[in-house]
Amino acid sequence: MTQISGNLFIGQTEKQGTNGKVYALDAVTGDQIEPAFGGATKDDLDHACALAASAFPVYRNVTPEKRAAFLERIAQNIADLGDTLVERCMLETGLPKARVQGERGRTMGQLKLFAGVLRSGEYLGARIDPAQPEREPLPRVDLRLQHIGLGPVAVFGASNFPLAFSVAGGDTASALAAGCPVIVKAHSAHPGTSELVARAVQQAVKDCDLPEGVFSLLFDSDRSIGQGLVADPRVKAVGFTGSRTGGMALVKIANARKEPVPVYAEMSSINPVILFPNALKTRAEEIAAGFVPALNMGAGQFCTNPGLIFAVKSPDLIRFAETTAAIIRDTQPANMLTPGIHKAYVERLRELKDHPKVTTVAQGPESGRFTSRVSLFAVSAEDFMAHPELHEEAFGAASLLVKCDSLQQLQEAVSHLEGQLTAAVHFTQEDYPDVSALLPLLETRAGRLIANGFGTGVEVTHAMVHGGPFPATSDSRTTSVGSLAIHRFLRPVSYQGLPEALLPPALQQSNPLNIPVSFG
Amino acid sequence: MTQISGNLFIGQTEKQGTNGKVYALDAVTGDQIEPAFGGATKDDLDHACALAASAFPVYRNVTPEKRAAFLERIAQNIADLGDTLVERCMLETGLPKARVQGERGRTMGQLKLFAGVLRSGEYLGARIDPAQPEREPLPRVDLRLQHIGLGPVAVFGASNFPLAFSVAGGDTASALAAGCPVIVKAHSAHPGTSELVARAVQQAVKDCDLPEGVFSLLFDSDRSIGQGLVADPRVKAVGFTGSRTGGMALVKIANARKEPVPVYAEMSSINPVILFPNALKTRAEEIAAGFVPALNMGAGQFCTNPGLIFAVKSPDLIRFAETTAAIIRDTQPANMLTPGIHKAYVERLRELKDHPKVTTVAQGPESGRFTSRVSLFAVSAEDFMAHPELHEEAFGAASLLVKCDSLQQLQEAVSHLEGQLTAAVHFTQEDYPDVSALLPLLETRAGRLIANGFGTGVEVTHAMVHGGPFPATSDSRTTSVGSLAIHRFLRPVSYQGLPEALLPPALQQSNPLNIPVSFG
Repeated sequence: MTQISGNLFIGQTEKQGTNGKVYALDAVTGDQIEPAFGGATKDDLDHACALAASAFPVYRNVTPEKRAAFLERIAQNIADLGDTLVERCMLETGLPKARVQGERGRTMGQLKLFAGVLRSGEYLGARIDPAQPEREPLPRVDLRLQHIGLGPVAVFGASNFPLAFSVAGGDTASALAAGCPVIVKAHSAHPGTSELVARAVQQAVKDCDLPEGVFSLLFDSDRSIGQGLVADPRVKAVGFTGSRTGGMALVKIANARKEPVPVYAEMSSINPVILFPNALKTRAEEIAAGFVPALNMGAGQFCTNPGLIFAVKSPDLIRFAETTAAIIRDTQPANMLTPGIHKAYVERLRELKDHPKVTTVAQGPESGRFTSRVSLFAVSAEDFMAHPELHEEAFGAASLLVKCDSLQQLQEAVSHLEGQLTAAVHFTQEDYPDVSALLPLLETRAGRLIANGFGTGVEVTHAMVHGGPFPATSDSRTTSVGSLAIHRFLRPVSYQGLPEALLPPALQQSNPLNIPVSFG
Repeated sequence: MTQISGNLFIGQTEKQGTNGKVYALDAVTGDQIEPAFGGATKDDLDHACALAASAFPVYRNVTPEKRAAFLERIAQNIADLGDTLVERCMLETGLPKARVQGERGRTMGQLKLFAGVLRSGEYLGARIDPAQPEREPLPRVDLRLQHIGLGPVAVFGASNFPLAFSVAGGDTASALAAGCPVIVKAHSAHPGTSELVARAVQQAVKDCDLPEGVFSLLFDSDRSIGQGLVADPRVKAVGFTGSRTGGMALVKIANARKEPVPVYAEMSSINPVILFPNALKTRAEEIAAGFVPALNMGAGQFCTNPGLIFAVKSPDLIRFAETTAAIIRDTQPANMLTPGIHKAYVERLRELKDHPKVTTVAQGPESGRFTSRVSLFAVSAEDFMAHPELHEEAFGAASLLVKCDSLQQLQEAVSHLEGQLTAAVHFTQEDYPDVSALLPLLETRAGRLIANGFGTGVEVTHAMVHGGPFPATSDSRTTSVGSLAIHRFLRPVSYQGLPEALLPPALQQSNPLNIPVSFG
């Protein structure tokens, strides 16, 4: 079994950080786990940035095939960690084995999907406008366009997906695919998992004979390193998944730079679920039976957790609420990721319980020290609209049922929402006209619309959008899951009148990369 | 001939603004031209934003064909203005007739190009991942992705392209193509031209039976309306072409909003030209003969004006400098756009002339009151690197020759540059190895690389990039010219498991829009 060292990984160097300590905690007991992880110093940060900057010109110009093989090698090296990784991740996050194994598969699948995109060449967005020497009054020059990487990318691991959105997760995979070196600031919720995965990536860099600066991992004992990373002029983009406060702090730092850079922060979403009357009439129980497991998935710590339900008052809605309440009362709570997250959840539950306009529909049993008690609350649409504090995310297995007097009021209440990652609609064919009327509004409020389901499953494919209007993300023009995520780290460059010998391979007339090209 | 009214255009309403006055100036004499243009009040701004917000849900959902026809109607209505527009534009800008006519053709061509993109459906970026009901362990759901408009867009007209980058210019055309209503803040350098074009757009909105809020034009007597526009929560993106100071002021306002929004500011570029030794040896005179007209094009007020030349010292470089100097001494200055721009240019010339490290190679004759005296200065690469004030744009027909000791020093000097719109390289086949060595650096510094030419001609095509790293633009991931510009105003939305009847037309299985779709 691989020993945990507590080291930083700066290129191919491994060293103990000397700027304070970060400890892993046993997610079930809250106990500290040895060894400590040494926090990076400013010098360590500078070293990682210098290596990344010097790796960029080389790494961005290796063939797409070589980058694809690198991503696949990372996936293989992660697989090779075997149960060591699964067990360490379970210990640090409290997530069950099947979930950790599934997430590991997802992480590897993500890397392989991006390898496929690299081989297809789609991400290059190659365009050629051939010269028109005969054009009047002036001849047209030959113009060719491709996309190139932005430069070194800072990635902040997320607490809630210790593999799929952490050291070698979606942000890292898409940045590496784009030709950008990556410096990861490890999340303190799973430092050992981070170290193991970082070792797999570092080994892949070596295996593939790439410049060492392509990847570094830093631990941060006091936020100064994370902030310094975003402020560093050599860093050209930032990927982040976490809280609204955390994300906006990074956005602010990035905007205040001499050269501002994009921050892709996936922050806050309550993921409204709209239950249309005929869906409730025909399958209230079925929806309830799907809803509670979705709410409790990952202890409610999914970004796409269904935190809001909108429906028009009716006997069918009462049936739904009663069925849901009964299931909740039988649902064991799951372990939360960290004692800190648990503490915040308990406080949020108390706020909701004590809110004068909110009623408690049902709460599940309590069990275990840091678990997420499944809870459903209710409020009238009128009160919901009047109380913006009820529109905030409860990070955990709590949801709020917003009871509307009419579909018109439902539409009005939904229009009060801020941007979301997802919005789900449950309906039957009889509801089509009403759904049709609501969908255009939902399109402006969310990045993904789900029919008769919940947003908790996020497929890693080409047509996935895991993004949405502010504050779901800091940049609604993108997605952090799926192949479109690569485009976050690219910019277009146009080449005018260059001879074949000087054109980049992607744009040569002979098309040596065999990629799709659109012609003007 | 259409009379100039001095009115604001708020949807289909025309009214005189009461918040101060903006006067057009005769660009040759500096004299005020009647009538005054009334500045918009906060109420006018609010009215325009309200109309735009209410137009958005309708306008974004009209068929691409209908939007295409609208863009073409705008082009036709501009053509129908005939000489009235050309003469007014010449009066306000001092630009010669051929240039204004050419720019009008470009503006109409731009609108027609975007109409073509709308019909092709390429901009929708449609992707379909079909369901895989048999997949193990879990079936895959049907996922479909398209891009939709961001919402109302604020456009700030540019001084230097009174037609192509103003009221119905590239930003407006691409935003309208994306399905976004547009509110234009007219540039005070050509208010009459703005009014005429606004009337053409307003009429097109009516001709095409679109909601009136699709287009408004505001005059601003004191910056409060422009700033208020960027701050308004109903505005979801901003297009700007102008100074670095002006652009960054808008970026700051947009970032400080409760919901930050993207600002596409095209700001500042000095467009380095690199002359390789063999190009100088074989055609120093030919390059000089191309360079001076490029430098003086539009009185040097092109964003892509060649403001810097890098070359290694040699007898050939002396030959180039002497030939250039001789041509400059014979080159009549052209009228600048405004007395204010002229004043800033005169000051910048004095700074360069008085700079202890800069020598004056040649200046052209002076003639006319507000003209741009063609000027070439020189400095050593060492001094250039040590003096960042020499890296700033001189908005006018001035260029600085940076004399390098070696190609290595040339590369070092180029690496000191900030982001640029363009970089041009002049070379022969003998220079290929040296050009090859420099191109990767130039790719990271500029949005467009030009071989054996100058960046002053900007084709409106599919492979054009008119953009570049900061401070050339505030967002290097985009272009403000060419069909890719539409993507600035779009965001992706994913639809999961929706029945055919509820899918947007672009994503229906029957593909009624007959658009390209990529399948995962």
